[in-house]
Amino acid sequence: MSKMIPTKHVDAHMGELVSDLQMLIRQPSVSAKNEGIEECAILVQKLLKKSGVKSEILRLKKGVAPIVYGEIKSKQNSKKTLMFYNHYDVQPAEPFDLWDDPPFSGTKKGNKIFGRGATDDKGELITRIKAVEACLKTTGDVPCNIKFVIEGEEETGSAHIEEYLRKYKKKFSCDGVIWEFGYVDAKNRPIIGLGMKGLLFVELSVKESIRDAHSSLAVLIKNPAWRLIEVVNTLRNSDGEVLIKDWYSEVSSFSKNDLKIIKNEPFDENVFKKEFGIKSFVGNKKGMDAKKALVGGATCNIAGFVSGYVGDGAKTVLPGSALVKIDFRLIPKMDPKKQVLRLKNHLKSKGFSDVGIRVYHGEAAARTDSSHPFVSQVKDAADKSFGKSILNVSNAGTGPMYPFVEILNAPCISIGSTYMFSRIHSPNEFARVDLLKKTTKCMCEIMINFGNS
Amino acid sequence: MSKMIPTKHVDAHMGELVSDLQMLIRQPSVSAKNEGIEECAILVQKLLKKSGVKSEILRLKKGVAPIVYGEIKSKQNSKKTLMFYNHYDVQPAEPFDLWDDPPFSGTKKGNKIFGRGATDDKGELITRIKAVEACLKTTGDVPCNIKFVIEGEEETGSAHIEEYLRKYKKKFSCDGVIWEFGYVDAKNRPIIGLGMKGLLFVELSVKESIRDAHSSLAVLIKNPAWRLIEVVNTLRNSDGEVLIKDWYSEVSSFSKNDLKIIKNEPFDENVFKKEFGIKSFVGNKKGMDAKKALVGGATCNIAGFVSGYVGDGAKTVLPGSALVKIDFRLIPKMDPKKQVLRLKNHLKSKGFSDVGIRVYHGEAAARTDSSHPFVSQVKDAADKSFGKSILNVSNAGTGPMYPFVEILNAPCISIGSTYMFSRIHSPNEFARVDLLKKTTKCMCEIMINFGNS
Repeated sequence: MSKMIPTKHVDAHMGELVSDLQMLIRQPSVSAKNEGIEECAILVQKLLKKSGVKSEILRLKKGVAPIVYGEIKSKQNSKKTLMFYNHYDVQPAEPFDLWDDPPFSGTKKGNKIFGRGATDDKGELITRIKAVEACLKTTGDVPCNIKFVIEGEEETGSAHIEEYLRKYKKKFSCDGVIWEFGYVDAKNRPIIGLGMKGLLFVELSVKESIRDAHSSLAVLIKNPAWRLIEVVNTLRNSDGEVLIKDWYSEVSSFSKNDLKIIKNEPFDENVFKKEFGIKSFVGNKKGMDAKKALVGGATCNIAGFVSGYVGDGAKTVLPGSALVKIDFRLIPKMDPKKQVLRLKNHLKSKGFSDVGIRVYHGEAAARTDSSHPFVSQVKDAADKSFGKSILNVSNAGTGPMYPFVEILNAPCISIGSTYMFSRIHSPNEFARVDLLKKTTKCMCEIMINFGNS
Repeated sequence: MSKMIPTKHVDAHMGELVSDLQMLIRQPSVSAKNEGIEECAILVQKLLKKSGVKSEILRLKKGVAPIVYGEIKSKQNSKKTLMFYNHYDVQPAEPFDLWDDPPFSGTKKGNKIFGRGATDDKGELITRIKAVEACLKTTGDVPCNIKFVIEGEEETGSAHIEEYLRKYKKKFSCDGVIWEFGYVDAKNRPIIGLGMKGLLFVELSVKESIRDAHSSLAVLIKNPAWRLIEVVNTLRNSDGEVLIKDWYSEVSSFSKNDLKIIKNEPFDENVFKKEFGIKSFVGNKKGMDAKKALVGGATCNIAGFVSGYVGDGAKTVLPGSALVKIDFRLIPKMDPKKQVLRLKNHLKSKGFSDVGIRVYHGEAAARTDSSHPFVSQVKDAADKSFGKSILNVSNAGTGPMYPFVEILNAPCISIGSTYMFSRIHSPNEFARVDLLKKTTKCMCEIMINFGNS
């Protein structure tokens, strides 16, 4: 047993962390293509065991990627259990020719380790395993009970995570969850995320005649694109407000603490606008309103609209059908199922019962109460490890956080090592060694704070 | 010199008509691919000469298909000049594999001659040449002066016909024009068309951010598809009326004679609805209103709308741009240039000055006064040759009739041999020999009536 404290152990063993991460990267695990999934699950299991964590492979049914589960009980403090949620699968690496090094090489250049999954999510995973290992190697114990839930379908939409959570509800029971990723901003400040928005993805369609017609017949044959435009135009106003009856009924306003956090969160409007080449925001939002929208705004977004001839030049056609893809970002208390019914009622009450509707995906928002003690424990740990950190009431995006909160009844917090410009999902994805080190130490501090609470 | 009258000569020489048509079909002349254009022009010139018509090739400039011009003066009656307007180019024959016989084979099977251009427009052309030949061969003269204007760019939009008409205004001067095509309905009744609608084809576009963004940013970044939908929704109401200020200002109502013609024109609503699988018409039009719309309705039609992700499944994207293609059918007195200005003013006055506009094509409507003596001359000839015929105040479609009417100041009438289900522009296009014969005779009668007037 070393006499070092865990964070010193992290400093002294970064070489092993890097080589283990390289080993993980070198095992492709592309869930979209079912490439290397089983192999990677076994590799992760081995790595957990090597680090002193009891591990097993959990299965739901054939064709579903297994979950690698890890567990270690604390001798000194077994009342509190912390879960690390991660995933071992990665996005496809295409287009290959845009990579400077082979995507599964794990090439290290200075402070950077390149490769698909280098940060998302193998980089995040390794910091957590190594933090547990550091505790075990230095103290012979962990500061609290630890559970690892490492899934293999995150990059294809976590289709079975809810089923896994229900099936293994007892096994997975815990008092807090560290989410699979966490961003670090350009000023090296980790962003501590307390929530994710929900999502409802639907397709609306109108079919009129059985085939496209010559547009001279538009005097008589109705144009489904016109119809769909009428429909869609009733869904939202130009300030971005959704006009569907009762859409916001259950939504509550931000707490005072939330508002304080939002106020403190840095957001450079001009840099953002320049990045996208835009002059103003939806509804002409500015300052605090813009920040509140990012954290807690619901949207109705046209992700795609298509009808008729969309090639170059002119073609005088009267389309037979029209289709729009819409994603609604949902905020806490909005129930996707209820919102689908409200959308259907809206269409019916406006006289659009001829409009077809297909629901692709519904996922509720999740948010951890910003005054929960877990929040300050994580914040303290982050400040200690990084010097400074930023609280974020909710990410603008969506992840499967809701079933964790709802089924496990545990607060979820996102914190990690992902540099915001580390090209996740893109060629030349990389992890920064300095951030991996700080994050591993931060995970040690989180466990300590959590165990002491 | 034969002692037969011209129509009898037609009966006696149908074999030659068919073989000359086959020869024309066997010379591909696809303007879209510049395939065989020069060769076909020369062939047509030879055919005119063979039939006794003085002929020359007219050119505008390099890269523009030539016009084959033919002329023959009447000895007995040189006061009146009739023009036959036709085209020697054809649509592409693709998809080749859907043809039962090679598209340029001119295969004759019973009453049908198959091939690209068999009816559109080589079939129509041959009836006119053979009608003139029949007059010359039987009487040694033509009943009136005859001019042939046979262009080679009709199937690609007659881009230079106006320039040709202006350049050769004097050479082409005439007192009446027989248009390049004419439909024959399922009951073998030729449709005598007195007009064509105009067309204004535009593209409206909205660009917001410099690239597509993740749809979670829809709380701040404006969606150009929403914007374009707002824009487009102001252009027209659900009854099909164009809402642009002064759009209908110059339009006059139908004359009493027009209304009588429209009333007499057969139109089976149920057959039409069944053909397209629709239940009702735009604005719930019925009976006379539906017929008036076909003849004289202006439209604002969405020919294409595209923004964002239009593939299968869900993609949470916030599009950077949106585009709509709109074709407006114009009716007489609507000036395309003026309508473009009105559209631009509409966008400006509604606060849509950020919307890009691109004008592809503007063409005015043309209509021959239904009480013009030329109309009854053609109608009498058609009734005599076909037993019955139908007057049509205007085709629902568009053709370059306006420059003929405006530059040559001559009435234009469409009449011909094109069976309405003869698959023009499609595989297995065919001409019907019985209709070619009747139409050739009809052309003889038209010349006689016109010369006697």
